[in-house]
Amino acid sequence: MTNPTAAMLVIGDEILSGRTRDANMYHLAGEMTKLGIDLKEVRVVSDDADAIVEAVNTLRARFDTVFTSGGIGPTHDDITADCIAAAFGVAIDVREDARALLAANYASRGIELNEARLRMARIPDGATLIENPVSTAPGFTLGNVHVMAGVPSIFQAMVASVVPTLTGGAPLISETIRVDRPEGDVAGPLADVASANPSLSIGSYPFNNASGMGSNIVIRGSDGDLVAQVATELRGVFAGFVG
Amino acid sequence: MTNPTAAMLVIGDEILSGRTRDANMYHLAGEMTKLGIDLKEVRVVSDDADAIVEAVNTLRARFDTVFTSGGIGPTHDDITADCIAAAFGVAIDVREDARALLAANYASRGIELNEARLRMARIPDGATLIENPVSTAPGFTLGNVHVMAGVPSIFQAMVASVVPTLTGGAPLISETIRVDRPEGDVAGPLADVASANPSLSIGSYPFNNASGMGSNIVIRGSDGDLVAQVATELRGVFAGFVG
Repeated sequence: MTNPTAAMLVIGDEILSGRTRDANMYHLAGEMTKLGIDLKEVRVVSDDADAIVEAVNTLRARFDTVFTSGGIGPTHDDITADCIAAAFGVAIDVREDARALLAANYASRGIELNEARLRMARIPDGATLIENPVSTAPGFTLGNVHVMAGVPSIFQAMVASVVPTLTGGAPLISETIRVDRPEGDVAGPLADVASANPSLSIGSYPFNNASGMGSNIVIRGSDGDLVAQVATELRGVFAGFVG
Repeated sequence: MTNPTAAMLVIGDEILSGRTRDANMYHLAGEMTKLGIDLKEVRVVSDDADAIVEAVNTLRARFDTVFTSGGIGPTHDDITADCIAAAFGVAIDVREDARALLAANYASRGIELNEARLRMARIPDGATLIENPVSTAPGFTLGNVHVMAGVPSIFQAMVASVVPTLTGGAPLISETIRVDRPEGDVAGPLADVASANPSLSIGSYPFNNASGMGSNIVIRGSDGDLVAQVATELRGVFAGFVG
């Protein structure tokens, strides 16, 4: 049985210009791993309508679930909701339930629900809202695409709102073995163990610290007994160098 | 005149599984901005040959320059060089100049140049080597694709080796204005200024700190005088709220 698959689309010039270091990809990747959903691809595109529409349509056709982050705020460069509507070929307009959420929130704070803020109530036809406990303005789910904010605290809250609706797979079990030998020494024996266990993903990640070069070997799989058994085997193979 | 374009392909399960937080994308994005090259898209794919080949061929056809990171070490999951050869339809084998670099380095350290390490001398036909001052094993450039290591210190050194060979554009000038008003208040006047200055990229990035909600407005463009003039204009528009 294979796990469900997912992809992520990060929308916004701030990552591509180097202004901001990504945090949302890292968060989502960790959440998917916990759920047993394989995050297979991430794309980062700029605030460009054609690029967003094409990426959404490619990814939603190819993977079980797609998550987007960014571009759903009130400013002129927030074009994600319109792009999602275009990608699905549906209409988009201010929706009453989303408008009501915003109106209540702003009224309670004595802030005007002006035209710019009302843009955040524009929801493509057929979508369901994603709760935003941080700042009210909702995300939405259309088909297999979950559209969320780019601000990390809001993104994380929206992911938490969506997670209970997802069908997970067998959670990924992983074990890491630190071997105080460079990758070039580890590679041969490791390849043999990897090819004998095709149901596991066995990766090697080099490090270089004060005590010298080494390799972190990560064994990942959904069968916890097998992961443990192969970890024991590898500890034997690299006996004397396991940290 | 438009700037040259670039894309990046990050290869490796460690980002997609949430084990590692990306550092190379952030580094490359900053370097491209300094050079006046527009980083237009980033893709992250797993250690899967089909996914790598397809992404390389899509990106190299679409953008002036492509950078890859990851998958050129000595272990079984390092398949990038073979995938690049497949993407270009050229042969790949151990190349003498790359082998000589590795042989000299390992000999000087009393380390065996075994079969696994020799994999790092496999270079697609027609490529030129990229110097690796950190750990010797070279990257390579084939066509408009620069293939580099995933370890951040090596990736950064390879980018530094490649940068002098790139043709940059007009460096991007940017100015940031902190406005102590939420985006919903800023959005209307900001949209007017943005639409009056189509040659600039004007973005708004909300923040929320101890003193309340605010917006960082970033004005980006290659015409420094225009960036400064619009920044002055926006400081006037938001007078009284500029931090």
